[in-house]
Amino acid sequence: MVKNMIIAQSGGPSPAINASLSGAVARAMASDEIGEVYGALHGLQGLLDHQIISLSDQMKTAKDFELLVHTPAMALGSCRFKLPEDPNETYHDVLAILKEYRIGYFFYIGGNDSMDTVARLSAFFRSQGEDIKCMGIPKTVDNDLAVTDHTPGFGSAARFVAASFSEIMIDSSAYPTKSVTIVEVMGRNAGWLTASSVLARHHGFTGPHLIYLPEVPFYPKKFLARVEELLKVENNILVAVSEGIRTEDGNYVAQAESGAIDMFGHRALGGVASALEALVRGALSEKFDMKIRSVEPSVLQRVAMHLASGTDLREAQDVGMTAVEAALSGKTDYMVCIKRVSNHPYLVRYELAPLADVANHERTVPLEWICDEGTNVTKEMEEYLKPLFRGETSVTYEDGLPHFFKLDRTQLVKPGF
Amino acid sequence: MVKNMIIAQSGGPSPAINASLSGAVARAMASDEIGEVYGALHGLQGLLDHQIISLSDQMKTAKDFELLVHTPAMALGSCRFKLPEDPNETYHDVLAILKEYRIGYFFYIGGNDSMDTVARLSAFFRSQGEDIKCMGIPKTVDNDLAVTDHTPGFGSAARFVAASFSEIMIDSSAYPTKSVTIVEVMGRNAGWLTASSVLARHHGFTGPHLIYLPEVPFYPKKFLARVEELLKVENNILVAVSEGIRTEDGNYVAQAESGAIDMFGHRALGGVASALEALVRGALSEKFDMKIRSVEPSVLQRVAMHLASGTDLREAQDVGMTAVEAALSGKTDYMVCIKRVSNHPYLVRYELAPLADVANHERTVPLEWICDEGTNVTKEMEEYLKPLFRGETSVTYEDGLPHFFKLDRTQLVKPGF
Repeated sequence: MVKNMIIAQSGGPSPAINASLSGAVARAMASDEIGEVYGALHGLQGLLDHQIISLSDQMKTAKDFELLVHTPAMALGSCRFKLPEDPNETYHDVLAILKEYRIGYFFYIGGNDSMDTVARLSAFFRSQGEDIKCMGIPKTVDNDLAVTDHTPGFGSAARFVAASFSEIMIDSSAYPTKSVTIVEVMGRNAGWLTASSVLARHHGFTGPHLIYLPEVPFYPKKFLARVEELLKVENNILVAVSEGIRTEDGNYVAQAESGAIDMFGHRALGGVASALEALVRGALSEKFDMKIRSVEPSVLQRVAMHLASGTDLREAQDVGMTAVEAALSGKTDYMVCIKRVSNHPYLVRYELAPLADVANHERTVPLEWICDEGTNVTKEMEEYLKPLFRGETSVTYEDGLPHFFKLDRTQLVKPGF
Repeated sequence: MVKNMIIAQSGGPSPAINASLSGAVARAMASDEIGEVYGALHGLQGLLDHQIISLSDQMKTAKDFELLVHTPAMALGSCRFKLPEDPNETYHDVLAILKEYRIGYFFYIGGNDSMDTVARLSAFFRSQGEDIKCMGIPKTVDNDLAVTDHTPGFGSAARFVAASFSEIMIDSSAYPTKSVTIVEVMGRNAGWLTASSVLARHHGFTGPHLIYLPEVPFYPKKFLARVEELLKVENNILVAVSEGIRTEDGNYVAQAESGAIDMFGHRALGGVASALEALVRGALSEKFDMKIRSVEPSVLQRVAMHLASGTDLREAQDVGMTAVEAALSGKTDYMVCIKRVSNHPYLVRYELAPLADVANHERTVPLEWICDEGTNVTKEMEEYLKPLFRGETSVTYEDGLPHFFKLDRTQLVKPGF
């Protein structure tokens, strides 16, 4: 008997998560062994609320799939939902709904929390004697998933970060006056995205001059000494800093609440870049005639589709497709991962990793790729990053603005609709 | 006798200022009436220091010109230099250097301050009996120059703003929880760039829901009431706010120093978006379960070449070329401006406006284009903006990163080199 498939998305937005959705749905619709292709809105949370739409119905033309590939964030919506450790009522509820919709294939696109969710559910389904193939599809701009060489979404976010650093560098070098510009990059525990700023050093651009990752402690005094030293020989200093850097005693440099009181009497927020800006201002503004500023590209880093990496979007689609093919061949409890075969030329192959090897592990930057007393990254890191940036994308622009694809989230479907 | 030409750039960076430089230099090099084409580094300030390079020498191939068009900020470097009101030693110094280099054509690319500079210098040259054709070439992402329909640089920055709002909207709508996202846009006195966020409302996206321009007073209580009202009917509220909004009593909502003390004991900076974020947090966070955040794209707005408008870059080149042609035909003391001939289809023609009509005037958004009690812009504004966004650009990417053109600022040349 032909069974149906359901797919959902979880965790934070990325430019490539819909590319994986597109790849998986396209492959499923091409198979005779899969009946209806459903999408659950807002991950497990929406699934539990019967918020289920028909992707077979809503994804009609090749153009739809193409637009979906080039739409950032999650077309199905996301959630931050954590299953309880032990199987309980929630597990039974999920299973009941999957049975109602005659689901034989369950796909979850997300980070390491999501892989844990898939592993738990799958174990429960098996314990109940149910044959539902469960596969994880990786995504995260943070690139912090274990086993896989890199995660879909990372290359695009990294390309935006590197290009933005090039642009900020050229901006700050416009004036003859000295300047220190501190740019805050996403990645609370893993410094991959911050490290990718290193690629802005090309065609004669020297910045970023200092790169601070969360993997090693941040020393405020050493930082100030380095900035002062650099200001003596360079005009425009560019600093890349991860949002998650901590001092030696383990305290975050960024503070959720800086204690500031604004004109309306409320507390203001303080990020790490503005904290370092204040630090430089306090210590060095009397020694140098200079402009000091901080930039936080914030969420733009994870949704800047207009600068997505072609390599990343293609791989994201392939990873989605591979997950469906693996499930069709009878596999379950795996996450698709990317294995780098060679760097020159860049070649990858897709493999399957047991969910247990991925779930709840966090892959941070190897300490041997961090150098110059924690202020730089090595050539190995550059070689690792370079191929992930390549390739243009073909965002559809209308009147100069990107045309993003929207699934109709109001068209909920009942089982056997 | 064939005379030489010199060109310089001034004011803040934009994605199109080098396109104007490219257009002007290409036109000059195609003319037999112009000898050497010089560039002064860092505007008048560099000129006074004899920081002069040869563009005839450094701009060799068609590829150089093409790369220069697609390089943001200012290849010659900028300055914030204000001439004294009355002709004094500085004026004589400028003239002496121009005579040394046998300059017959002087071009200055900049905003309204720069146009004032050109007008003053030109009047002085004439008073000394010198025949030096002086032309202003407009640029500013703020779009605040008088007489011209719009300024080169604005369309590109506006396109980045609108596309970023689309992306931020899609990012915030990923989650089922409510959210308020406040995005701060450049433009201290003129709201053109903030207004351009309105074009993010396309393909079913409803944000930005509120747009606050500096042309009208900002009422904190009314703002909170509107946000509260919106939160009752919409999940994700997106607010566009100009960095320059002021309350009824004329005080800026943004504060240079918010009074915050960070972990290092220094004062932190506070922008307008974070001030409004704190305002919403203080007043509404107990009434709604929601995420509140602020985003400041900061300088990325003025250098995001990867999302420049093709229309804008083409016009910027044409404006540069037109300035040289006007000077060659004997004109002086004009700024080239763009006259919109029709909107459907979009057609423009280039005209000359006396510098005096432009200098020191600031063109703000007409009040009749601001509606809904100062929280929105009209259809007329949308119609005005739309054509300026159109057209792709052909940034040269290498390994996925933009290849920017660099002039060699160390190769200073002596007169008659």
